[in-house]
Amino acid sequence: MIDVAALTLEEKASLLSGHDDWYTEAVERLGLPAIEVGDGPHGLRKETGVDMVWVPATGFPTASAMGASWDRDLVRRVAAAIGEEARAEGVQVVLGPGVNMKRSPLCGRNFEYFSEDPLLSGELGVAYVQGVQSTGVGASLKHFAANNQEIERTRISVEADDRTLREIYLAAFERVVTTADPWTVMCSYNRLRGVHASENRWLLTEVLRDEWGYDGLVVSDWNAVHHRVRALAAGLDLEMPGTAGKTDAEIVAAVRSGELDESVVDAAARRVLRLVERAFPGAGLVNGPVMDLGVAPGDRLSPEQLALLRADEHHALAREAAAGCVTLLRNEGGVLPLRDDGRVAVIGAFAANARIQGGGSSGVDPTRVDNPLDFLGDAVYAPGYVHTPLNAYQDDIAAYLAAHDATFVDDGRGPARRSAALAEALRLAAAAERVAAGPLSARAVRLIDEAVAVAENAETIVVFAGLPLAFEQEADDRTTLALPADQVALIDRLASLRERTGAALVVVLSNGAAVTMDPWHDRVDAIVEAWLPGQAGAGAVVDVLLGRVNPSGKVAETFPLALEDTPSYVTWSGERGTVVYGEGVFIGYRWYDALRRAVRYPFGHGLSYTTFEYSDLVVQTTDAVRVSCTVTNTGARAGSEVVQLYVGDPDAAVRRPVRELRGFEKVALEPGSSARVTFELGSRDFAYWDVATDRGGAWRLEGGEFVLEVGASSRDIRLRTSIELPDDPGLAPLVPDEELLDRLR
Amino acid sequence: MIDVAALTLEEKASLLSGHDDWYTEAVERLGLPAIEVGDGPHGLRKETGVDMVWVPATGFPTASAMGASWDRDLVRRVAAAIGEEARAEGVQVVLGPGVNMKRSPLCGRNFEYFSEDPLLSGELGVAYVQGVQSTGVGASLKHFAANNQEIERTRISVEADDRTLREIYLAAFERVVTTADPWTVMCSYNRLRGVHASENRWLLTEVLRDEWGYDGLVVSDWNAVHHRVRALAAGLDLEMPGTAGKTDAEIVAAVRSGELDESVVDAAARRVLRLVERAFPGAGLVNGPVMDLGVAPGDRLSPEQLALLRADEHHALAREAAAGCVTLLRNEGGVLPLRDDGRVAVIGAFAANARIQGGGSSGVDPTRVDNPLDFLGDAVYAPGYVHTPLNAYQDDIAAYLAAHDATFVDDGRGPARRSAALAEALRLAAAAERVAAGPLSARAVRLIDEAVAVAENAETIVVFAGLPLAFEQEADDRTTLALPADQVALIDRLASLRERTGAALVVVLSNGAAVTMDPWHDRVDAIVEAWLPGQAGAGAVVDVLLGRVNPSGKVAETFPLALEDTPSYVTWSGERGTVVYGEGVFIGYRWYDALRRAVRYPFGHGLSYTTFEYSDLVVQTTDAVRVSCTVTNTGARAGSEVVQLYVGDPDAAVRRPVRELRGFEKVALEPGSSARVTFELGSRDFAYWDVATDRGGAWRLEGGEFVLEVGASSRDIRLRTSIELPDDPGLAPLVPDEELLDRLR
Repeated sequence: MIDVAALTLEEKASLLSGHDDWYTEAVERLGLPAIEVGDGPHGLRKETGVDMVWVPATGFPTASAMGASWDRDLVRRVAAAIGEEARAEGVQVVLGPGVNMKRSPLCGRNFEYFSEDPLLSGELGVAYVQGVQSTGVGASLKHFAANNQEIERTRISVEADDRTLREIYLAAFERVVTTADPWTVMCSYNRLRGVHASENRWLLTEVLRDEWGYDGLVVSDWNAVHHRVRALAAGLDLEMPGTAGKTDAEIVAAVRSGELDESVVDAAARRVLRLVERAFPGAGLVNGPVMDLGVAPGDRLSPEQLALLRADEHHALAREAAAGCVTLLRNEGGVLPLRDDGRVAVIGAFAANARIQGGGSSGVDPTRVDNPLDFLGDAVYAPGYVHTPLNAYQDDIAAYLAAHDATFVDDGRGPARRSAALAEALRLAAAAERVAAGPLSARAVRLIDEAVAVAENAETIVVFAGLPLAFEQEADDRTTLALPADQVALIDRLASLRERTGAALVVVLSNGAAVTMDPWHDRVDAIVEAWLPGQAGAGAVVDVLLGRVNPSGKVAETFPLALEDTPSYVTWSGERGTVVYGEGVFIGYRWYDALRRAVRYPFGHGLSYTTFEYSDLVVQTTDAVRVSCTVTNTGARAGSEVVQLYVGDPDAAVRRPVRELRGFEKVALEPGSSARVTFELGSRDFAYWDVATDRGGAWRLEGGEFVLEVGASSRDIRLRTSIELPDDPGLAPLVPDEELLDRLR
Repeated sequence: MIDVAALTLEEKASLLSGHDDWYTEAVERLGLPAIEVGDGPHGLRKETGVDMVWVPATGFPTASAMGASWDRDLVRRVAAAIGEEARAEGVQVVLGPGVNMKRSPLCGRNFEYFSEDPLLSGELGVAYVQGVQSTGVGASLKHFAANNQEIERTRISVEADDRTLREIYLAAFERVVTTADPWTVMCSYNRLRGVHASENRWLLTEVLRDEWGYDGLVVSDWNAVHHRVRALAAGLDLEMPGTAGKTDAEIVAAVRSGELDESVVDAAARRVLRLVERAFPGAGLVNGPVMDLGVAPGDRLSPEQLALLRADEHHALAREAAAGCVTLLRNEGGVLPLRDDGRVAVIGAFAANARIQGGGSSGVDPTRVDNPLDFLGDAVYAPGYVHTPLNAYQDDIAAYLAAHDATFVDDGRGPARRSAALAEALRLAAAAERVAAGPLSARAVRLIDEAVAVAENAETIVVFAGLPLAFEQEADDRTTLALPADQVALIDRLASLRERTGAALVVVLSNGAAVTMDPWHDRVDAIVEAWLPGQAGAGAVVDVLLGRVNPSGKVAETFPLALEDTPSYVTWSGERGTVVYGEGVFIGYRWYDALRRAVRYPFGHGLSYTTFEYSDLVVQTTDAVRVSCTVTNTGARAGSEVVQLYVGDPDAAVRRPVRELRGFEKVALEPGSSARVTFELGSRDFAYWDVATDRGGAWRLEGGEFVLEVGASSRDIRLRTSIELPDDPGLAPLVPDEELLDRLR
């Protein structure tokens, strides 16, 4: 590794901002190569060299879908495939995973995040980082921290108390940083308690480095730096994208004037050098296994090699991943799986043109896209509603530009032009939301009439519905949890048909975050949540419909009955520059459980085509609290169950959630077979963040009674017991889950 | 008025703390008398000279009852009567009114506060101050500010944002200070954003004096001063009770050392001198009319004179006041008023020993106490549950001491001993709550059985129920909204009897704050909320039951369906020294309306024996927005209606409540008659507190659509319209309601 002493001040400063949008600065004098980064996290998004045109890559299920898999191994394999594609494309860092909490289902970027729960998000974030980095490519853990809305995301200041930050908004980051060592951590756009994350020394240095021991690189979200010298002093190593030397000069000037100590520049430059060393381990350092692609690190594969590598295997993996995510929400009378020989009507334009991903920086140009109709050839079909089959916001922009006789010309004003195009896309999105809220156009009514006619003689009607792309966009939040008015009207009409003809009515949803289901929910037989399942999702969904795959997804976020029920409702999305996290630690199921509020589908809920029984709860307390139980597949089909362990602390000096997820395991079981599942809990699993300590705050295990619950969802608790712990029970501070997993395997 | 220059530094300092618990320091050298203060606000509580033994006084309905009257004039007359009794007793300042907001129905002191709405609280606070001060006695507006719970009240730090403070927690204080000029303002016990109210310069000087123009005296709540010099510098003029010269010496030392500028001492001393001047206007200054009591100001009446003055007239006023507060919550099938000739069973120990007030510093030693049974002589009666007929916490303490063979001996350690006694009272209260939560004792079951037997042949069963004194105590909060388990069981058993015999079942409640009514609510015919109605409440309640008074009260606080529905639920009552007001401005009906949450009884609800029709809504906008409508008594009885005006701002840069009370008027109408009610709105009635201004915050009228609603409750809107206002409509900044009232009269 090149010693930082070998660099001039100007060279060191040059390392601390990008060369352009995607590359860091090289130092040719010393043979120091540039690092190329590529967007993620659901597939590689690498620019072709033409502004806003991307190299084709495999589009995997988005993070909210993967969250519903509750499957660490699946996430790890998908991330490794993304790492492989990055490696093959000469990209050294993939910008993901995102482990922000879902404070509100309205957040337009929720589809990029795993869960409303920090343990689940953290565990899947660990798996993702390990997967990517197993290929010799770095991950970028983002967006650090408390970036939980898109509205005013670059300005809004989050006001949250220490306990809320520690227990909810920082916890997943802490788990990933301390367990998986991501090469980079990306700071977020927002302000935290008045200070931009990019300039927040408490966040980037005191917590991240001093407390958690992070020694990797901190990179800015794109254009998140507002004052380069302050950001550097706060702990922000690498500014992205580049500023054509402007902010490098500011750093140099600050050192020369004595405003900034050169040792701060040295430390940041050293971290960039270390990143280069990790990415190009020519000096003997190797981080993780490097794939044998027959090319030198950093080289590119030919298109033919690429195709060989990815197209088939990764598409198959994408389908397997999607199958692990599909969540069966409702299945009244066991109408699913469909019989092979029934007369099926397929309704809904998403069946012909699948919704596979959300809009924004995670939008992949997919190598191919499967559509449900491809797998349902015998069925009759009608679109039922208008759908413009675009798969990412750049497509929206393309359509917009095309409609205005504009073309993609790299005019050298990339970011500025992109910003204008983004603004247009957001305007389009807003217009689309207005249209979607109704009233119905004549065309919409015609499409519904046609669909009802097509479904008239069906024994089973399968409606593909969900959210248009415009609803799920980076830089924009939803304003409603409802489906578009035309889809609601369509489902309602089909429900009336069902009541008349006795047909079974199945709704397949494609959406990256929770939706409400009024007024149609009780009038349909089955609901399959397909999420945004990536390019191969269609096959997985049809496999579930036909029973070739037994669904095993569980919602990683609560589906509320109404927007007004959501925890952040009265403070969303902040005002006059500030958003107060007034609900404190009570987000997601923590809120609904505390308030004993009815929900549409509780956190952790998902049905199967088989049944599982829980028994024999045993708790042993030594250096850890070991909770074990037996799960038995009592049905006739093989299936997987997500066994969930919750801990509650009913009597503490602070108000704690009724239950908090403290362990989960996905178990595959043949019919009649059993497995013993063991969870290991350390002191942290019982602790809260106590602000009233000499040190200004610390984790505290307050002795007393703790309730242990094992369930198939947060509201389907099958086994329950309680234990007494003293104030200092001598438990290990935090048992890394990896060790536990190794023991269990 | 004595010039401050005539006083030595030591004399000035001596004025800035009490002589003892109840008197300020005199300066005999200059003939400056001491001021005597007395507890309020529901009647005078003046110590006899024997520690914790009080001069008998008229006990009026508590503030939460008076809040339900929505009657400015009634409050003014009651306050004037209290002022007269104070004047007659030689007390120069009455410690009240309390205009704190009801953030949670659990707050043990809610019975001392008017409402969950700042306009209603502020208007009634104005009336109270004007009433007291019309007798030449000063009022003390308390507890300033954000003292909304009793748990940890002396330590807890309130974290609330500026907008929440300005629009909710400070607004009632602002209205009273700027409209009624209370002689004194009392700071609260709690900390606000980390700084005790007694040392909070922002609160006591920047807001109270610099912004609101207050030039009266700021007095501490008793023992609320923690650092005398800091408090003085922050704007706390008078420390109570006295400290035997200890803190006076601290002030002198601070001036001598240069730590404190003597001008600060001068300003505070000048305010004490001015208070003395107001109380003893011998120097020619007269504030308000002085009653002709035939005695010199400051002199005491003989017991005979006292009796002449108060006993009958004030008892009659207390009964009239209670009648104006009684709130008819439910009256299915018009079972009320009772027929004269029916067979009535009266059940419930409160019928024999009325619950008239809450515990703590507002506990009056009443001149007499009426009980409902006194007015229901023909009815059969059974107690139904255990009730110890104590009427204030000192009685609890007395009972406790008696049980321990202790007696009242003034041992010179008043405050310390009282504090120990208070601690015992609180322990008793906690024990009482535990007992009340059940399970039922054998004695409780016997009492219920007996009551059901007594009611067996009744045509109407009237149950007197509610909260024991132990539930509503200063220095303690409730932990549940439920009635005691024995009362719930009693009502349930009587409801079963009702279903069997067809008897009508009427519940009369005595409680100072909202209660829940599960599971019995739907099984009773009528519910009469009597509140804590003071010493003459029994007659008023019976008058309502028998139809001699037509009820006209309206709840000034929402009755929720469950504790979990309340806005502060997840943050109540704070933790580790801090309570976060996470719900922001959304307390009370603002919360339930925003979340479209069902409630038991909405803010402003109250039934009548007659009916009212609303018509002819007219809005005129000139220098003010004038909203007028016609209200007609369409029934067969005379009655009073509280006409409520709400304003909503559906589209603003901040999230605003669906509706906010902006005017109210209680109108008495004969059958068939009509009245025209006019409300006048200034710019403040449409404005929110905007934190994003150059000055760091200001009221802002953001132009756009405003919804105007006139209703009989917050959820019984009868007339609705909307207006458009520009950003700066040229309205008067704040139209004092007094002017409006004068015009209306």
